Parts: sequence; structure tokens; C-alpha cells
Amino acid sequence: MRRHPIRQSLLAIIIASLVSGSAFAADEAKPDKPAAPTMASVMDTAKDSDWRDLDPDNTLYMDLPGGRVVIELAPQFAPLGVDNIRTLVKEGYFDGLAIIRSQDNYVVQWGDPNADNAADSENPPKSIGKAKEKVAGEYFRKAEGLPFTALPDPDSYAAQTGFSGGFPVGRDGADGRAWLTHCYGMVGVARGMEPDSGNGAQLYVIIGHAPRHLDRNVTLVGEVWSGMELLSTMPRGKGQLGFYEDPSRRTSIASIKLASDVPEDQRQPIQIMKTDSDTFKQLIQARRHRAEDWFLDPADHLSVCNMIIPSRLKPVETPAE
Amino acid sequence: MRRHPIRQSLLAIIIASLVSGSAFAADEAKPDKPAAPTMASVMDTAKDSDWRDLDPDNTLYMDLPGGRVVIELAPQFAPLGVDNIRTLVKEGYFDGLAIIRSQDNYVVQWGDPNADNAADSENPPKSIGKAKEKVAGEYFRKAEGLPFTALPDPDSYAAQTGFSGGFPVGRDGADGRAWLTHCYGMVGVARGMEPDSGNGAQLYVIIGHAPRHLDRNVTLVGEVWSGMELLSTMPRGKGQLGFYEDPSRRTSIASIKLASDVPEDQRQPIQIMKTDSDTFKQLIQARRHRAEDWFLDPADHLSVCNMIIPSRLKPVETPAE
Repeated sequence: MRRHPIRQSLLAIIIASLVSGSAFAADEAKPDKPAAPTMASVMDTAKDSDWRDLDPDNTLYMDLPGGRVVIELAPQFAPLGVDNIRTLVKEGYFDGLAIIRSQDNYVVQWGDPNADNAADSENPPKSIGKAKEKVAGEYFRKAEGLPFTALPDPDSYAAQTGFSGGFPVGRDGADGRAWLTHCYGMVGVARGMEPDSGNGAQLYVIIGHAPRHLDRNVTLVGEVWSGMELLSTMPRGKGQLGFYEDPSRRTSIASIKLASDVPEDQRQPIQIMKTDSDTFKQLIQARRHRAEDWFLDPADHLSVCNMIIPSRLKPVETPAE
Repeated sequence: MRRHPIRQSLLAIIIASLVSGSAFAADEAKPDKPAAPTMASVMDTAKDSDWRDLDPDNTLYMDLPGGRVVIELAPQFAPLGVDNIRTLVKEGYFDGLAIIRSQDNYVVQWGDPNADNAADSENPPKSIGKAKEKVAGEYFRKAEGLPFTALPDPDSYAAQTGFSGGFPVGRDGADGRAWLTHCYGMVGVARGMEPDSGNGAQLYVIIGHAPRHLDRNVTLVGEVWSGMELLSTMPRGKGQLGFYEDPSRRTSIASIKLASDVPEDQRQPIQIMKTDSDTFKQLIQARRHRAEDWFLDPADHLSVCNMIIPSRLKPVETPAE
């Protein structure tokens, strides 16, 4: 028998490859199914109303030679940053730029390889056009007014963690601050020493274990829902911090566009499970207590970056005959 | 100025590329250096006695087309598993086998692509020779007798976390159980449904966010100290669970050898910081409180899989003139 070190992780299903709900079948319980629900048995009960469509005005398509990366933006956490990124994208700023950094177990970063070359007339930085040069850091917001599905277990970094609108979130109290957490697949705005020096012209994605010490120190603006494997397998840069020293090792970006600027028949109808749905709350419990036969000693605990937020391609409606 | 989203992470230095202590210079504080120590300032105080050599009898060299992966074994946690792996390695079992699985944000796994083919006389499984077919699971051990450097912060999964002999560890009480935790770069023994079905002929390494729910459910046997990027960038498998459906996408393994079976001049003199040293304890505090200027809101907390255990190449002794 082929050995599976580990039963099906749903992570690949959400982040790495969007597939239909039937992919969860591999995780289905055996005939001697335990009474406690499994993630698969919970998914089987999901209703269409448990899913939301990605908003095309908040969705970026990053087209790379290997395929498309789909990023959902989070204006509810970073309105200024998202606004500036929308301006850059609408100007075609990223088109023809490159992946400039790949640091193992940390980040992949993209932008203008010539960003440093203000004094180099042959390879000058690309103009950011009407986008703002400086954007105030958006490191946290008021927790008030945010929907919040809390996790019951302790967290090493935040008083409370949970999910809001599909994003992983930390809070320091119901009336206090809330912030996006640096989980795998989260996208942030690179910045220099000054808090307002990140304008979205360089973005990074987390490709390893969650560097949660960055929470509230840098602006997170979104999350990758598809094509993550195109970024996570980028050859690591040999330069300091994983920057590519050899320009030929950079991967060029064909374009980054807002989904709403792409013809409808070229969009991907991705749906994300609503993180305030009862189904998602049951999925949290099923992931806390792994009732599948393979597990000998279920953790009965869960950390925010180890949860899975299901995504899928919207089912095609079949017209009645 | 080139934007660094994030100041130097030492992770790349330890796991992805072994470099001399001078690489920490990039993290050195500015003239207006804060009073609190930084990771760089702590590293500057490290003495030769803070480092230990890897034991060649507990070190595997996995040679891939792209280079060498160096894995330290942990017999103090998994004596039976390590013993069986040593038998397999000494027989040359892995030589000519392959990377068979790469699942994004989860694991890369290697072993015999024909392991399932008991009934296929043309492509039979490779014999495991004198190695045992079944090995009891070693999911935890007594905490008693283990050196332990504790982290002060809460963990989502364990009553206590810390480090022992260079490995990340969870405990449920000083007199209770201790176990290796599924952090990035940890190596484990794939198993089927039965607790004793993992014999080390298929091994996996964690390449994404720590799947801590696997702790105490599968035997961890070691940790990657060098060459991790060769594994983490493996193209993701398109099959279920990230297995490669197309055999041509598998990467072949030239050999896995014990370092002690490799001529001394072909070994890598890797040293690991002792996790019970005062320097390491200070490094924990410097990583909990990031005093570097870039940080606006230091976390003052740390989770076990977000700590860095420094490694280096042993400095060459220069003979006196």
C-alpha cells in the first residue's frame, strides 16, 4: 500500500488547486465511521449559500509564465493600500515587471527590479504614474464593526484569533484592535524603514511558516486563493534576503489586472466559504478534533494559520431540460 | 531605496544556506542602536563553545541533482525509527529512488515509486533488505531526562514548548510526555493506517506552515539543516495529495548516505547552536522582542516553529605563523 504519511490535507485543495467539492471524497470516513464529524462529512453538508463569490473589483489576476495567481484584496483592513494598488494595476504598472525575491521559508516578492536605480538613466525605475509615492501604514483597525468567527484555542501572539470575511485575523479584545495575520499565502506591502514607505509597488507573499512577528508591523492587503504553488516554488534567490543577484533568474510578470477589467469569460468563478457560516464553524471543530481513523491522538486545538478556508470553482448551473 | 518588506530573517541563513556568522551583519543596528539586544548583537557575542558539531553517525546526506540535503537524525526521540533508517541507508536502499510527492504548504515525500506494486513483476517494489517491515510508532517519549529550553509564551497545541538538543519540542508537563513538533524542515516517517506501518522507507519533510495537528500522530525522526530549498521548491504534484502522476516529474535521488560513511574531506562541517546555551536563550529573547529599528510594534511573543536555530560551517582553524 502506498503510504500516506498523513491523511488528506485540504490545504492543497484550497490554496494550491481549485477543485470541486468532490475532491473531499478522499477524506471520507470508512464504513466504521466515527460519530464525530470529519472535515469531509462537514463539507458534504455545505449549501450553496455557504459560499461567496470573489468580488471582481477586489480580485487581482497575476499572470505568470506558469499560469495565473488569484489574489483577493482586503479593503476592509487596508483601504488606502488597496486603493493605491488598484491605481497601479489599472495603469499596467506591474506588466513586464518581475519576481525579484524568493527567500526560503519566508517570502516571495515582486515589483520593479530597477526600483533602486533613480540615478541610472539607462535602467531607470518605472513610473508609478498617478499612484501615491507614500501611503500610511495600515497595521491594524478597530475590531468594532468587523464580523468575527473566533477560534477557542490560545495563540502565541494575539489575545484572540479568528476569521473575518475570509481572512485570518488577530484581535486584542472585542473593542480593541484587529489585524490581518501573516499566514501562508497572505500578501503584504513591502516597506522600508519609514511606516509610510510602502506604496504597493512592491508586494510580497508568505511562502513558509507564518512569520507572525510581522503582524502589525507591515500592511497586509490580501490573500492568494489560487496559483499559490507558482509563487512558492520560485527558485530561491542567492542574494541577501533572497533577492536574485542574477537578473536572468527572475520570473517576469506578464500582467496584473483587476478581475473586473478582464472579460467575463476569461475570469475564474472562484467562491470562498463564508467564514461566518455555520458550516465553517463546524469545519473549525472538525479540524480541531480530527475524527478520521488515521488520527491516534487528535489535537483538539487549532491555530489560526493552520485552519483551512475552503474555496471552489462556482458550480455550473445546468439548465433544466 | 530597495524596499525590504521585512528586515533580515535569519531563517534563510540557517536552513536555506549555510553561511558564516558575518552574514548576520546585515541585521546590525544603526548608529542610533536601541539598548535592547537584537538577534545580530546576540550572535556577535556567540562563542565557539556555543556550537556543537553534527554527529556523522546521526547525519544523512541526501544527494539530489541540484545538490545536497543535510538531515540530522533524532535517536533521542525515535531510536527504533532512526535505527531502521540507518539500516536502509547502509544498504543503499534510497539510491536511485525518487521524490514521489510534493504537496503545496504541506510535505515533500520520497521513497520507492513502486512501493505499491507488490503484484507487478515488471516494476516490483525495491527490497528493504535487512530493515524491518514494521516499526512501532514513536510519537512521544518521557520528558524526564531531556534537556529542555522552554519558551515563555502560550502555544496553540502544547502545554509547553521549547527546544531540546537542537530540535523543537512540545511537552505536556515537566514529568509527562515530550515530542518533536511538526515545524518547517522537520523530517518524519510516512505511515499508513496502522501505527507500526511506517518503517522509514518513505520519509517526508514539512515545506509549509507547521501542521501541528500531526504532532504525536506520526514519528518525526530528524530535521533539515542545509539544502532545504532543494526540497521546498520541488514542482508540486498534480495527483491526489500531491503525488506525481507523471513519473517524469519525479526527481531522482542519487543517494542517501550516513555522513560517517562519506570520506571526511567530502563532508560538510556543519555546526548547530546549542539550544541549552546562554547565547541561544538570549537569542530567544531577542527574537521575542525585535529591537531593530524597522519594528514598530515588537510582538514580545514567540511560537516554537517561528524560532531560528542558527547553524554555520565550522570555522577553519588558521595555524599560527
